[in-house]
Amino acid sequence: MNLIKKPVTGMKDVLPEEARLRNYVMDVIRKTYAAYGFQQIETPAVEHLDNLNSKQGGENEKLIFKILKRGEKLKLDEVKEAADLTEEGLRYDLTVPLVRFYSAHQAELPAPFKALQMGPVWRADRPQKGRFRQFVQCDIDILGDATNLAEIELILATTKALHNLGFSGFEVRIGDRRLLKAMAAYAGFAEQDYDEVFIILDKMDKIGQDGVQKELTDAGFGEEAAKRYLSLYRELENRPGAEGIRYLAGTLAEHLEAGVADNLIEIMDLVEKSRTADFALVFDPTLVRGMSYYTGTIFEIAMPEFGASAGGGGRYDRMVGKFTGLDVPACGFSIGFERILLLLTERGFRVPTAGSRCAVLIEKGASPDAVHAVMKEAEARREAGDQVLVVRMNKNKKFQKEQLAAEGYQEIREVFRD
Amino acid sequence: MNLIKKPVTGMKDVLPEEARLRNYVMDVIRKTYAAYGFQQIETPAVEHLDNLNSKQGGENEKLIFKILKRGEKLKLDEVKEAADLTEEGLRYDLTVPLVRFYSAHQAELPAPFKALQMGPVWRADRPQKGRFRQFVQCDIDILGDATNLAEIELILATTKALHNLGFSGFEVRIGDRRLLKAMAAYAGFAEQDYDEVFIILDKMDKIGQDGVQKELTDAGFGEEAAKRYLSLYRELENRPGAEGIRYLAGTLAEHLEAGVADNLIEIMDLVEKSRTADFALVFDPTLVRGMSYYTGTIFEIAMPEFGASAGGGGRYDRMVGKFTGLDVPACGFSIGFERILLLLTERGFRVPTAGSRCAVLIEKGASPDAVHAVMKEAEARREAGDQVLVVRMNKNKKFQKEQLAAEGYQEIREVFRD
Repeated sequence: MNLIKKPVTGMKDVLPEEARLRNYVMDVIRKTYAAYGFQQIETPAVEHLDNLNSKQGGENEKLIFKILKRGEKLKLDEVKEAADLTEEGLRYDLTVPLVRFYSAHQAELPAPFKALQMGPVWRADRPQKGRFRQFVQCDIDILGDATNLAEIELILATTKALHNLGFSGFEVRIGDRRLLKAMAAYAGFAEQDYDEVFIILDKMDKIGQDGVQKELTDAGFGEEAAKRYLSLYRELENRPGAEGIRYLAGTLAEHLEAGVADNLIEIMDLVEKSRTADFALVFDPTLVRGMSYYTGTIFEIAMPEFGASAGGGGRYDRMVGKFTGLDVPACGFSIGFERILLLLTERGFRVPTAGSRCAVLIEKGASPDAVHAVMKEAEARREAGDQVLVVRMNKNKKFQKEQLAAEGYQEIREVFRD
Repeated sequence: MNLIKKPVTGMKDVLPEEARLRNYVMDVIRKTYAAYGFQQIETPAVEHLDNLNSKQGGENEKLIFKILKRGEKLKLDEVKEAADLTEEGLRYDLTVPLVRFYSAHQAELPAPFKALQMGPVWRADRPQKGRFRQFVQCDIDILGDATNLAEIELILATTKALHNLGFSGFEVRIGDRRLLKAMAAYAGFAEQDYDEVFIILDKMDKIGQDGVQKELTDAGFGEEAAKRYLSLYRELENRPGAEGIRYLAGTLAEHLEAGVADNLIEIMDLVEKSRTADFALVFDPTLVRGMSYYTGTIFEIAMPEFGASAGGGGRYDRMVGKFTGLDVPACGFSIGFERILLLLTERGFRVPTAGSRCAVLIEKGASPDAVHAVMKEAEARREAGDQVLVVRMNKNKKFQKEQLAAEGYQEIREVFRD
């Protein structure tokens, strides 16, 4: 009887070198966020399917690993459809579990609550290079703060974590779903068409303004609306940052609730003045962010070395209330943990190590006294912060020593039998 | 539409204070084992059911959370039994995945390989107080070392981890499955009855020697065998440690392979001489350890404050070979992570914190300049290692301040609107 050696489809084993890097990155992230008063929490890997299927997960709801009912609950004879077989599944993100967690434990938590979550999620995506069916997400969220202090702290903390991991010169793009909607309203699109319009708008950096305008008309939207829409973007070209936001505030006055523009400008201004990390905070009127639960500011991290986004988030003020009846404003920022890891690996990043590393090879048959002397000294050195590997000497000692040297052991000692 | 607020049956949410403790314990364990040259690895939560059901998991195989097949693989019309619906499940321990991992990656790993695993496992146990269906296991294993260097390093490292977590005065009980079998053979039990005999023997600390003898005869074993068996244990009463082992070596000579006793004495002697942690290593001829895969030495941690075992392990030289065709000796030691956590919590253990903790409450409407001044100072203090929480001031400020003080913020500052 043989074990199947490969991991299950789309999931991967983590070898020692990668595990070291993963632990290091998690440690840096955890310490950085702790300095900002974020508190880590954990939720189970398994979640109620009713919660997972609550229409907040978007496409992810199609990718759930569902768990077969057990014992008396599994009635094979009465099964009509797959849904009769399951009631629990693996979480596909950390947001649905966070909302459940908060609604269950609110009374025990500070208000506002600054939460850090870092843990695996599972999605039955089509396997592809570099994307796995189990991967770590890393989210910070502030629940119970309606003011833009939340956005400011989220951006400062997230960029500081990236800074502490050695990243610089990246961009944080910021926008606001309310601005996005006001722009669409100004152009004359109907509200039910906004999502479709935004999907096309999202391609701006690939297909440009003319491309977006053409796709909009190709999709059946009126030429006038498309033109009017794109005219806004053309006006913004020469009005970067706060100037552009002020231009929109003036132009969209009829469609935009008061304070949205000032709020965004204030966030950008305060982050700019307070930040210690090296990054640019850029107003991006084309930023969409897929999830429909966002209600206000939205953000995204763009790394020069990395085509896709390396993180993102935004404000989702109505989600907690919708599911719990409690009106709780909320705002979150997620780091693309696996992408950050990939970037560090591509850069040849090495986890810094403290202390020296020594390997002692002991030949089979070495006297107990000799072994004892090794152990005694090893314990003392470990106590002092060194790493001491004591192992049996292999027959192919040369290869063993080469391998240990490659692993980073600076000192290799040998103890022979008498 | 409402979320189900409670976690799924038998699993739990981890609140900030517990999460801090969990992270702290993991960190201490990881650093301790790293000093001994153990390298952390990770395997996916999801494993092939064929592997999980390979008869090494004992009773745990009945407790698997199975994952429903997806898409074309799920043929509801053709389902005859539950097994047709699944091919993957959540891992119930870290040993089966380790063996799979090793067989897949052996060429990339050092030999001997010292592995650390720390991660969640899932068992659909009947929910009961303090036992959960998702819990963390923490195992170290040495693969590829047939000598007792493996046992010595495993015991030194595990006890050092407990020492570094503040435990002292505990016991590590050690035995050997081969001694256990030789004792049963000497008494005259048939080999196919050993497991049943050992299950009764395992109750020794509860029912005593007379109790064991009675249960053996009640179970239908010959009175002579039971008497002869217990006579060995009576002889051992006045022969502690090495003396008892030597007595067995002499008495059981016909049934015991050469070297077993010397091996055990040498392990005990070398650990005793080399250890820096405060614990007693005790030969325990009644130690059984449930899993059938053990082939040699077995160990268990007994904490005075804690009735049950707080960890255990042993040598399982044939398991890797059985499943991979490669003959690889192996030995492992597992810490009862959740039990250790429970003990620390019961003792009122507090995670040590570095730096001071300051909370700044900002009233709604405070000027951007005032917020900026707070942020600037906060960033500087965080840089210096302090924890600075900046949050919106609540209407019920008094309660907010009390709560923050209870959370451990030594300094609370308030910033008002002009």
